Amino acid sequence: MKNAETTLAKLIEIALRRYGMLEPGDRILVGVSGGKDSTCLLRDLAIKRTWWEVPFEVEACFIASDLYKMGVPRAEAVDDSWIRQKAAWWGVPYTRIDVPVIGRLKPGEKMSCYWCSTQRRTELSRYARSRGFNKLALGHHMDDILETLFMNMLRKGEFATMPPVMRYNNYPLSVIRPLALCEERQVIACAEELGFISQTCSCAFNLEGARRMTRSLIEGLTGGSSVAKRNLFASMSHVKKDYLA
Amino acid sequence: MKNAETTLAKLIEIALRRYGMLEPGDRILVGVSGGKDSTCLLRDLAIKRTWWEVPFEVEACFIASDLYKMGVPRAEAVDDSWIRQKAAWWGVPYTRIDVPVIGRLKPGEKMSCYWCSTQRRTELSRYARSRGFNKLALGHHMDDILETLFMNMLRKGEFATMPPVMRYNNYPLSVIRPLALCEERQVIACAEELGFISQTCSCAFNLEGARRMTRSLIEGLTGGSSVAKRNLFASMSHVKKDYLA
Repeated sequence: MKNAETTLAKLIEIALRRYGMLEPGDRILVGVSGGKDSTCLLRDLAIKRTWWEVPFEVEACFIASDLYKMGVPRAEAVDDSWIRQKAAWWGVPYTRIDVPVIGRLKPGEKMSCYWCSTQRRTELSRYARSRGFNKLALGHHMDDILETLFMNMLRKGEFATMPPVMRYNNYPLSVIRPLALCEERQVIACAEELGFISQTCSCAFNLEGARRMTRSLIEGLTGGSSVAKRNLFASMSHVKKDYLA
Repeated sequence: MKNAETTLAKLIEIALRRYGMLEPGDRILVGVSGGKDSTCLLRDLAIKRTWWEVPFEVEACFIASDLYKMGVPRAEAVDDSWIRQKAAWWGVPYTRIDVPVIGRLKPGEKMSCYWCSTQRRTELSRYARSRGFNKLALGHHMDDILETLFMNMLRKGEFATMPPVMRYNNYPLSVIRPLALCEERQVIACAEELGFISQTCSCAFNLEGARRMTRSLIEGLTGGSSVAKRNLFASMSHVKKDYLA
């Protein structure tokens, strides 16, 4: 393993252990998009599966939508051959599901990032449950989590985000985000090292204006400092309720 | 009452009620500096005292230090005649206490904003307790509270700030911050309307670099939007612990 990949592998290991993400016999479905985040995640879990102290299974699922970008349908079907080959190479069973996100819009409904991502996630969850997976692994990294935190703080007045582990009552599928402790720059470094970058596709989610704006606001707030960013992240587990308004 | 003063008076009333800051028979000591914040606060409480549904007492205490600004002693004694006369005019008993902040430094100790403000606060608390006050009212406004929140998040990895009401176990003095729901621009507007602004003195605390820097970071984060700022503030009372890292 090279440098950046080793760093990412260690940060993922810390997250898996700290948040208790892996339990014996887990059947984990990784949502992959062909982008850098989920590709790095899939590769890492495929490797960890071979030496981790408790056995777990990993499969990949690609949700192909008919949305090219917000408001624009695709000219032709999504080409997922690159990520499909990677999965095969790493010995990870791979499934593709086509979801007609645009086709599902009812008359009068407007396409939105929220609606599209909800459709895709719903399909991913449905597939996972139908095949007996108990965990869904998503490629959100620390910057994604901080962005959601600040979007919620600035727009909804809530201190809440996408948590590293989300367990549901009365629902047998948990969501885990093993990249929770990885900064995006660390994922990019790993993807570059492994030659993934040129393949990354841009999904509608990444094009969302509010999220991109929040990203640059956080850059301003932290001055790009990793220490400041990690402190922001740590503040979520150090909520002093007697010292709040 | 004029426009900006009416706004401030209402926001203070909302804070007093929402956080249960006033109880029958309260003896409240207001820490005054001669600056816009504590002067507006003192005037407002002096007025509310005359019509509020439960009786409470208000007095003012001015802590005069020998520190002109960080590292620089004062050339002559602090002149507090302006705020003293205001208090007299509003019928509020007034006390001045001189604290030799520099004089108290032990050999080898370095002056810091933290040390200076702790000395002043300690003296204020000591005086309050010795005279039977049960509440200390401080002039921190919403921007001060958000600054401390972000300094703690960015530097200490904690979600914590100066709360609107701070009650201590085994200590008979509570701290209240009736300006908690007022933005600084609203306090400034009120101070300008009442002709206080020209008198505001700069204390060592305001000169602190980290705080000033955090202030401009928050301006960047919110784009100066009051809605965004109030959402940040509201996020402190909407902590969703299942949705945090």
